[in-house]
Amino acid sequence: MLQPPPAEPGMREEEVDTPALLLDLDAFEANLDAMASFLAPTGAKLRAHAKTHKSPIVALQQIRRGAVGQCVQKVAEAEILAWGGVPDILVSNEVVSPRKLARLAALARISKVALCTDNAEALALAEQAAEAAGIRLPVLVEIDVGAGRCGVAPGPEAVALAERIAGSRHLTFGGLQAYHGSAQHIRTPEGRAEAINGAIERTRRTVEQLRQRGLDCGIVGGAGTGTFPLEAASGVFTEIQAGSYAFMDADYAANQEAPPFRHALFILTQVMSTPKPDLAVVDAGHKAAPTDSGFPQPWQRLGLRYAGASDEHGNIRIEGGTPPKLGEKLRLVPGHCDPTIDRYDWFVGLRNGRVECLWPIAARGAMA
Amino acid sequence: MLQPPPAEPGMREEEVDTPALLLDLDAFEANLDAMASFLAPTGAKLRAHAKTHKSPIVALQQIRRGAVGQCVQKVAEAEILAWGGVPDILVSNEVVSPRKLARLAALARISKVALCTDNAEALALAEQAAEAAGIRLPVLVEIDVGAGRCGVAPGPEAVALAERIAGSRHLTFGGLQAYHGSAQHIRTPEGRAEAINGAIERTRRTVEQLRQRGLDCGIVGGAGTGTFPLEAASGVFTEIQAGSYAFMDADYAANQEAPPFRHALFILTQVMSTPKPDLAVVDAGHKAAPTDSGFPQPWQRLGLRYAGASDEHGNIRIEGGTPPKLGEKLRLVPGHCDPTIDRYDWFVGLRNGRVECLWPIAARGAMA
Repeated sequence: MLQPPPAEPGMREEEVDTPALLLDLDAFEANLDAMASFLAPTGAKLRAHAKTHKSPIVALQQIRRGAVGQCVQKVAEAEILAWGGVPDILVSNEVVSPRKLARLAALARISKVALCTDNAEALALAEQAAEAAGIRLPVLVEIDVGAGRCGVAPGPEAVALAERIAGSRHLTFGGLQAYHGSAQHIRTPEGRAEAINGAIERTRRTVEQLRQRGLDCGIVGGAGTGTFPLEAASGVFTEIQAGSYAFMDADYAANQEAPPFRHALFILTQVMSTPKPDLAVVDAGHKAAPTDSGFPQPWQRLGLRYAGASDEHGNIRIEGGTPPKLGEKLRLVPGHCDPTIDRYDWFVGLRNGRVECLWPIAARGAMA
Repeated sequence: MLQPPPAEPGMREEEVDTPALLLDLDAFEANLDAMASFLAPTGAKLRAHAKTHKSPIVALQQIRRGAVGQCVQKVAEAEILAWGGVPDILVSNEVVSPRKLARLAALARISKVALCTDNAEALALAEQAAEAAGIRLPVLVEIDVGAGRCGVAPGPEAVALAERIAGSRHLTFGGLQAYHGSAQHIRTPEGRAEAINGAIERTRRTVEQLRQRGLDCGIVGGAGTGTFPLEAASGVFTEIQAGSYAFMDADYAANQEAPPFRHALFILTQVMSTPKPDLAVVDAGHKAAPTDSGFPQPWQRLGLRYAGASDEHGNIRIEGGTPPKLGEKLRLVPGHCDPTIDRYDWFVGLRNGRVECLWPIAARGAMA
């Protein structure tokens, strides 16, 4: 059951029901513009990641600003984007379930779709699905450029897989997927540069070896909000897959260089109990704010610290700041925007302190 | 948007689409029966917590086995239970939003509802809502029996608040809420007993002081899956608010004494990549399995360890066990059942290896 929206257009922020997911529209649009401006001179295009925003509405705003399309991690996300009018979708991930592959192949009738592979057996399943659907499915080879998750080794192993794709009557070779996930969260710029320079070199060599076999990479995709200036400047990557840049979170803010993205995403929460002088209990706990990248923190309220969560409660310690009143509403900055957005059914879009729009988070929970 | 169900009745477990939330119906029913049998001779009744299961279907099965009703933490949960036919619902939590209080008061026309308070100002808001709705709303006083979250101090402060309730023309005094949340997760039985014995004594004294003022507690409620045998045996607590017992999770299993609840809840996940001999990547990450109480772990697969999560991927390290094959489906035991259930739209009920039923998790995301 879709939860009812926590607000109506025209309401003031303090009237929004809690917990709610607020989107500061000025900051959000500034982030979309900043990314478009930053990438324009590099030659790399944006294929923004919808695993973050889960919304065809956000996707179409990114595409209006020059993004070539969207990435997703799940076929269920691809469905919701395609049904919502997104014309070009890459599943930047492996898919090995025949039912999921059949669903993806069916989508090829309404949007351009592609997927990734790192295994010959998985490739055979994709080929069967494409044949059954009577389509030709573009497939990218995922290479492990340092993250140690999915992907074949760069070089000959990737070339062998690409040749199998190119040799299929039901598939086309789409290029390389070369995302270094763990590098996004390395704390120092030097550490990120070292990791990504290695990833760029591995990718460059693989692209070159493919070219020697007559295989051109339509897409060389990767990068996230933590490292994209490096990949964009490499001359190797053609598509940037950042997602969090549109919203930002506490984890990415701790690493940020240029361009200066703004916090656009907040959890609005209400003080429901003030049991002690140094403690205010708010109505956003684990279920409203995932804690895999740390607790959410009060926004522009010095001396208040979110110090502990239970399922439906957050403990705000008052450490020198003005104690919030019973019933007062506070903004929290999420620790990690992706799983936070995926907890809510609605973005509450705010401008000048008023609710301007409500956007359903249509792919919330689209895990399959 | 409600996600489509990942299975159909009659399917074999290995046909269920992933990630999915499996409910082993034999284990689940055994857990409901075990709790009913355990509490029967104690005199304490079960008021099971729906914050765990989020489903009127589960609630009604608990009530059929003798539970007096349900607890919830949120008014939105109370609505979904009441609309689903649950006749007696306690919001075991503070509510200070006038809009939420009006919604709760409206529910009093179709189900018996009550809420908790720890503040005179909050009480005045509840009184206004009851008056506006033309109902008389039962209110319990929450006392802090050691958890350090919400609640007034046991003793005179609680008595003063109870007298205010009893003196209102729009409220009735419903009793005491005395839940010791943090004690549920203390690792040793001795540690839990020490914490709960203190909670029982504080509650007993407060009940006695209320009685001296002529105020009887209709409900003295508290306890969870980690400590309920202590509260049930106390002669002080009349209602037990356990929720996790029906499902179990890795955290509670680490503390378990009697009765022997069984793991009934599993995340079904598929191996989507086998990039290295010692690594299998599955399709359940942070979004499918919250990690606030540790990673989910493979069920009955020795030598496999879920060692790391990203948003949509889990890394299974092969440490001596049989490596799972590409496409193979594995059961994971969740670290913490409450936020895990709240991520899914459907329980997939299994018996003898077949899907017997699909139950919507109707209050999934009901945070307001």
